[in-house]
Amino acid sequence: MKVGILGGSGYGGLELIRLLLMHPYVEIEKVVSPSYAGQELSSVFPHLNQVELPSFVELDALEVAEGVDLIFFATPADVSATYIPTFHGLGVPCIDLSGGFRLRDGAVFEEWYNHASPSSELLREAVYGLTELNPEQIEHANIIANPGCYPTATLLGLLPIMKEKWLSRNSIIIDGKSGVSGAGRKVGLGTHFAEVNENISAYKVNEHQHIPEIEQVLSELVKKETRVSFTTHLIPLTRGMMCTLYVGMKESHSTAEIIALYEAYYENHPFVRIFSEGTFPTPKGVAGTNYCDIGLSVDHRTKRITIVSCIDNLMKGAAGQAVQNMNVRFGFPEKTGLVLTPVFP
Amino acid sequence: MKVGILGGSGYGGLELIRLLLMHPYVEIEKVVSPSYAGQELSSVFPHLNQVELPSFVELDALEVAEGVDLIFFATPADVSATYIPTFHGLGVPCIDLSGGFRLRDGAVFEEWYNHASPSSELLREAVYGLTELNPEQIEHANIIANPGCYPTATLLGLLPIMKEKWLSRNSIIIDGKSGVSGAGRKVGLGTHFAEVNENISAYKVNEHQHIPEIEQVLSELVKKETRVSFTTHLIPLTRGMMCTLYVGMKESHSTAEIIALYEAYYENHPFVRIFSEGTFPTPKGVAGTNYCDIGLSVDHRTKRITIVSCIDNLMKGAAGQAVQNMNVRFGFPEKTGLVLTPVFP
Amino acid sequence: MKVGILGGSGYGGLELIRLLLMHPYVEIEKVVSPSYAGQELSSVFPHLNQVELPSFVELDALEVAEGVDLIFFATPADVSATYIPTFHGLGVPCIDLSGGFRLRDGAVFEEWYNHASPSSELLREAVYGLTELNPEQIEHANIIANPGCYPTATLLGLLPIMKEKWLSRNSIIIDGKSGVSGAGRKVGLGTHFAEVNENISAYKVNEHQHIPEIEQVLSELVKKETRVSFTTHLIPLTRGMMCTLYVGMKESHSTAEIIALYEAYYENHPFVRIFSEGTFPTPKGVAGTNYCDIGLSVDHRTKRITIVSCIDNLMKGAAGQAVQNMNVRFGFPEKTGLVLTPVFP
Amino acid sequence: MKVGILGGSGYGGLELIRLLLMHPYVEIEKVVSPSYAGQELSSVFPHLNQVELPSFVELDALEVAEGVDLIFFATPADVSATYIPTFHGLGVPCIDLSGGFRLRDGAVFEEWYNHASPSSELLREAVYGLTELNPEQIEHANIIANPGCYPTATLLGLLPIMKEKWLSRNSIIIDGKSGVSGAGRKVGLGTHFAEVNENISAYKVNEHQHIPEIEQVLSELVKKETRVSFTTHLIPLTRGMMCTLYVGMKESHSTAEIIALYEAYYENHPFVRIFSEGTFPTPKGVAGTNYCDIGLSVDHRTKRITIVSCIDNLMKGAAGQAVQNMNVRFGFPEKTGLVLTPVFP
Repeated sequence: MKVGILGGSGYGGLELIRLLLMHPYVEIEKVVSPSYAGQELSSVFPHLNQVELPSFVELDALEVAEGVDLIFFATPADVSATYIPTFHGLGVPCIDLSGGFRLRDGAVFEEWYNHASPSSELLREAVYGLTELNPEQIEHANIIANPGCYPTATLLGLLPIMKEKWLSRNSIIIDGKSGVSGAGRKVGLGTHFAEVNENISAYKVNEHQHIPEIEQVLSELVKKETRVSFTTHLIPLTRGMMCTLYVGMKESHSTAEIIALYEAYYENHPFVRIFSEGTFPTPKGVAGTNYCDIGLSVDHRTKRITIVSCIDNLMKGAAGQAVQNMNVRFGFPEKTGLVLTPVFP
Repeated sequence: MKVGILGGSGYGGLELIRLLLMHPYVEIEKVVSPSYAGQELSSVFPHLNQVELPSFVELDALEVAEGVDLIFFATPADVSATYIPTFHGLGVPCIDLSGGFRLRDGAVFEEWYNHASPSSELLREAVYGLTELNPEQIEHANIIANPGCYPTATLLGLLPIMKEKWLSRNSIIIDGKSGVSGAGRKVGLGTHFAEVNENISAYKVNEHQHIPEIEQVLSELVKKETRVSFTTHLIPLTRGMMCTLYVGMKESHSTAEIIALYEAYYENHPFVRIFSEGTFPTPKGVAGTNYCDIGLSVDHRTKRITIVSCIDNLMKGAAGQAVQNMNVRFGFPEKTGLVLTPVFP
Repeated sequence: MKVGILGGSGYGGLELIRLLLMHPYVEIEKVVSPSYAGQELSSVFPHLNQVELPSFVELDALEVAEGVDLIFFATPADVSATYIPTFHGLGVPCIDLSGGFRLRDGAVFEEWYNHASPSSELLREAVYGLTELNPEQIEHANIIANPGCYPTATLLGLLPIMKEKWLSRNSIIIDGKSGVSGAGRKVGLGTHFAEVNENISAYKVNEHQHIPEIEQVLSELVKKETRVSFTTHLIPLTRGMMCTLYVGMKESHSTAEIIALYEAYYENHPFVRIFSEGTFPTPKGVAGTNYCDIGLSVDHRTKRITIVSCIDNLMKGAAGQAVQNMNVRFGFPEKTGLVLTPVFP
Repeated sequence: MKVGILGGSGYGGLELIRLLLMHPYVEIEKVVSPSYAGQELSSVFPHLNQVELPSFVELDALEVAEGVDLIFFATPADVSATYIPTFHGLGVPCIDLSGGFRLRDGAVFEEWYNHASPSSELLREAVYGLTELNPEQIEHANIIANPGCYPTATLLGLLPIMKEKWLSRNSIIIDGKSGVSGAGRKVGLGTHFAEVNENISAYKVNEHQHIPEIEQVLSELVKKETRVSFTTHLIPLTRGMMCTLYVGMKESHSTAEIIALYEAYYENHPFVRIFSEGTFPTPKGVAGTNYCDIGLSVDHRTKRITIVSCIDNLMKGAAGQAVQNMNVRFGFPEKTGLVLTPVFP
């Protein structure tokens, strides 16, 4: 099977390349990057020296679509929103790593992204690609909206308890901490080493576009409008993400009971690992892999559960989950090409 | 005025030395470190080469007390708890940077520190040294319990709103993020560079001894027992701390209204700086100084305020506040020796 | 084929485990760690959760040797020196990642390691496992002394020019820079995050035991005693190593000429990549892989070549090269299990 | 005395502001930044909240010169080269932190900076402001060319041995390692956190414009043309610089002898600290101060001295030395405003 990658010169695209090179059933046919078109990948990215890959090409939809079974969009949301309708029209399935197709409702999109979606009519056709939640839909989807990194870590940390409706709705608070690669390869003072190192920054406080994405999924699950508080922090690491979740319980349950609930829920989901009582996951423990590691602790004093959920933002939070979705969509075993041991330390 | 420092070879003690060397009215008379007794400070800490300081001495209470007007304890809690009664008996005022005297109630101490306080009878005599809260008491205190770093950032972020009782009690959630120097100079896998770098760790989840310290102050302020959820995270930076606080409001107020409340509260407190709407503080913005910087944002959707509070954990979170308390206690202007511009970047 | 790993709880051992799990012809049969014997690997290293591995066992030579085709020693040099004679006597081939068997001459060993080698009679039987230099010897070796990380980066950066004897002997200066994982998992102030971060340390200046290891290889190559200056620096990164080499030329050659010499030399060595003129490698460009990347620049003003050589110290500098040596020794294609794309960024 | 700062929004300018706020005899009268003109410093740099400072102004030479006794140029070299002639013509002394006036010879300038100096006629009038080398000339200079950071660390590490002419000329090799703040506040991929973190980069290999600056001073000292090899490396830290110097000796001397030579040379220079035998300095040991720390080791095997020289690149390597030069030029005691203890850890 042959795939094309749009946005091959960003961190998400480079991670897709790393993964697809290890995938037994996939060949990388086209790598699109208007800024580097015509150049070899290894001349821009020396870490790819002596790795066999096609050169960067222009974003010409017809040419890119030619001879390709699937397109990955590792581009900004506006590029996805502009080009996915074209590829969709040409009958090429698309997996979009951006936020362009994650929200179903065009009005909500406009509220949080500050402009109308250029392809609002397709928003409802896209399937939200949280693999553990939507496998059947993903099997038949032609536009898969790969979830955001924070929503992935958050939702995997919440799904089992939402299902059981044990939690006090609207009590959910999400404190997210992310490495800098999540901000992409674009330069700016916000990613300047001298200002990020030895520092922590809260950003987009109460305004992050991952808020409606999380709320959309949670509201559908409990079939009632659900609101969350969500704050994101930039942490001085390159890769890795932790979401610390605080949820109020309707009535008190023991940590052991909660852990059992989570283990049962994720029994057949190989990429979600539940930690034993008293232990908590770290981003380094999932580095370079598609795992989401989850630890849980009940505080009986406040009747709240503290949930710690960790992913590699470029893997389960981006390229890894995209490959996982490709596997589900094209009938490969879910783990194909993704059986990796964390790079530790 | 002459002072002694116990625990002069830890990070808190070294920061006290840095500050007191700049203080116009203070002379460092004794620096105690049993492990290095007899050695010059500069032979252990080359950054102190050519700085005039006495050599390290043994912990002999009578000798240390001799000719000294004040003792700083930059020691573990059990050392403070063991030796403060002696110095107190000798009539020497003590400022304790450890947790040995912060909790008033011996039973609560035992619950959270897992052993009885060796000096529980003095617990009620100690004054909690959050300078902005307790200046009058500090003026006359002979045992000043310097607050913990997390409680300092948290309480300064909450004081104005607690006073007004605008908040929904028991709604408070504190997500703390700290640099590694807060863990002290003791070696262990938890501070090994290779495991801390490119990583984040949640630790002492729902079990941190700063929980009762925060709750004690808040409960006294609102005159009702108040519970908080509190999770601490180790972040790969040397210095710096951010607490992200989530508090539910009884009724909705605008961000501008909340900021005005905070500005009024801290009008005469030079070390607390309130940020304007839409901007948030960072640890780098207070590095090396005694400032506590606070940013605020109301989320009308959830009726919660997000409060971001930043300090340098070794300064306002330890040595800086200790010097500030010394100034208040001995009648120097509060800012003496503490007028520092952040080291940026 | 079945292998045992001694020192499975150190960074070198963990990296061996990561690699061998991906190797198609190898099964990890025994993982020895006296400190954790009896425990599951995943209980000590949560990043190995849900990875199938045997539990840690004691270091009982007879039991460990049983049913195993090869032993990796990822232990300190004294453990290797003590136990390799036993395993060797039992007829089990050993690949030693420590410095215990790298020096041929017992007197030199004693001079630099400050104690006699416990197995000096075997020193001459061991083969130095710089794969690119010694493949034929490695094929038949029963004790393979895997090179040190600095010697690997240094020697690969020097081999082509030594062979041609273009360089001015005794002009070689090696400035090495290493991440902290090279110091191992042992705790100490030298690896404490707060002291390593935002810092650089020169260590073992003119006393590093890698000096005789490098000189032994170079002296044999040019058949004359050769001396180098060598300084090592600890850099605040977890993984990665750069050696900057300065060598005087007998007569001036162009950078292009030198690059051509290196490209020819490494033509059939897939893990050494020579950079084009004006570009230089970085540790991030080889992270997680077995590559050694080399960049070259001639300075006609001083008649010196600057050579920049980068490896991942845990891979080509330890576990990666050990697996490469295993492949050569057991007749697998050299790249088996080592075709990896760098984890970037 | 009143000063103006050009380039007040870069890291050098901000560090000047931090220092001058602590200086007892200086008032900051003008802070120039065309990009932020009209804005308050604290609105751009929140760490300066509640610090009394004038607002940013435009670069209008006549207005800036008005009422000012001295101008600091913390600007790129081309801005200094363009504007210093004007201020010089207006009779205002200038201290230039850029490279615009460090080279005496216009032809050399053009060779290394790749364009002609716009003010080559003034190059010979400028005094090279390595305070320890040139105090008498600095006292009477009207254009002080503040040395580059690498040349400062390198030259202070070489001065004593050059004077004595013990060294083998043209044997000098300089391996420089710098934090990222040395690259300034300009954004680019070269300073993007995700690419600098967990990485090391050699840059401008054999092409750095600090090479002729170092050679100019050394050649004058020994009165013969002297060439050095010099390679610079970007290290993942914000502040701090280490130069590791390798120099061949004409005949062998002991480390103790060399240390004695250095101690004698720097006896009356309070900012240079010589380390005792077997110990070596680190950037963290000088962080935030004007110190240059130097350690020395003789290798009798190769007849080379290894010299390790550390500075804070924004202090002794930029703003600190600029203030030191101002003190000398205006007759204040050399240490005024610069008596600071390193911020450790």
